[in-house]
Amino acid sequence: MDFEKELKVTETNIPGLLVFDLSVHGDNRGWFKENWQRAKMTALGLPDFGPVQNNISFNAVKGVTRGIHAEPWDKYISIAAGSIFGAWVDLRPGETLGQVFTTRLDPSKAIYVPRGVGNSFQALEDGTVYTYLVNAHWSLEQKKTYTFVNLADPELNIQWPIPLEESERSEADLHHPMLKDAKPMAPRRT
Amino acid sequence: MDFEKELKVTETNIPGLLVFDLSVHGDNRGWFKENWQRAKMTALGLPDFGPVQNNISFNAVKGVTRGIHAEPWDKYISIAAGSIFGAWVDLRPGETLGQVFTTRLDPSKAIYVPRGVGNSFQALEDGTVYTYLVNAHWSLEQKKTYTFVNLADPELNIQWPIPLEESERSEADLHHPMLKDAKPMAPRRT
Ligand SMILES: Cc1cn([C@H]2C[C@H](O)[C@@H](COP(=O)(O)OP(=O)(O)O[C@H]3O[C@@H](C)[C@H](O)[C@@H](O)[C@H]3O)O2)c(=O)[nH]c1=O
Ligand SMILES: Cc1cn([C@H]2C[C@H](O)[C@@H](COP(=O)(O)OP(=O)(O)O[C@H]3O[C@@H](C)[C@H](O)[C@@H](O)[C@H]3O)O2)c(=O)[nH]c1=O
Repeated sequence: MDFEKELKVTETNIPGLLVFDLSVHGDNRGWFKENWQRAKMTALGLPDFGPVQNNISFNAVKGVTRGIHAEPWDKYISIAAGSIFGAWVDLRPGETLGQVFTTRLDPSKAIYVPRGVGNSFQALEDGTVYTYLVNAHWSLEQKKTYTFVNLADPELNIQWPIPLEESERSEADLHHPMLKDAKPMAPRRT
Repeated sequence: MDFEKELKVTETNIPGLLVFDLSVHGDNRGWFKENWQRAKMTALGLPDFGPVQNNISFNAVKGVTRGIHAEPWDKYISIAAGSIFGAWVDLRPGETLGQVFTTRLDPSKAIYVPRGVGNSFQALEDGTVYTYLVNAHWSLEQKKTYTFVNLADPELNIQWPIPLEESERSEADLHHPMLKDAKPMAPRRT
């Protein structure tokens, strides 16, 4: 991991999907970072997305894989320990539907995932801690409005570092449809 | 750590210092938790504190100790990995000045620390990850407005599980004044 980088944002091939470099300060105790800083980051182009919920998932072993889930809210995702390989798929109706972006994230990186972009990741280390802020309250009923796509879809051709057959996944994530059979996410009601 | 607890809030001897039990869901992949959920938690009595910054500190080894810092904003603190022994000291002018509360936190717990309450903790495990939300943007200049107290103040008599002499601390945290010489935090300007 790189320390003392300058806070920076990088655009991707998926519109609105933004990768951040964070500044991590190391010392005799470990390290410290501003994981999200509204003023500095909105100045760089992060939407002022108004988080109301913070979720944390603990991924016990290398290879745990979760996704692909597009939910009807925005997410700001980062790593508190360990590292991941992430894959994002545009699931909004339109020209960029099906575009894929992949990258590795460690604690010195973050990513902003706009509503309708499918999210997935694989833990690259035992004990990887994944934390994210969202701007709507989750509820079980809303799962009906998600768009799910299969991690193994050959059309997406995601190069998972650890073969999916060897990875821990949830029962649900084994059975999502391929992109060609998935229903793109409905636009936000206005 | 306890799984599947019900979300719950408990008051302490320090006014406004609130301890939360969080619901952690375990499965074949590890675990998942709603670390902060504005609607459910404000319904239970968490102030609607309006976070604008999320900080994470990584504490590499057991015994790392940080504090005692009272800053001019509110904090919602929790654990993403490992566990801590925490100590909080009321540093607001008034009847409860000098009151101490201590407890252990693991990922199934969180604590809300109102402005003017001094915050400190000791990592009880290697690789302990401490994450918190605050409702003001940090800046170096504001350090002048903090109230600092010494972790070793005999008047506070905090029973640190790992002796302070054996703990990693910052140079700054070695030199804070004792409570009797500290300047209580000025009330919020209105
Ligand atoms: C997402 C979520 C789940 N839960 C509960 C439901 C289950 O008991 C448990 C685990 O839920 P699952 O849906 O299996 O978690 P998961 O880790 O498979 O889901 C996550 O995958 C990421 C790739 C996405 O980006 C996330 O937004 C989320 O969908 O947590 C909540 O209580 N609140 C929440 O916000
Ligand atoms: C608090 C903070 C520090 N920093 C930088 C300054 C230093 O380079 C580095 C470490 O800062 P320090 O003040 O030494 O961190 P620290 O871990 O000793 O300070 C923390 O201690 C906890 C007990 C308090 O509750 C926290 O609110 C904070 O004061 O991080 C930020 O960039 N943003 C911030 O918000």
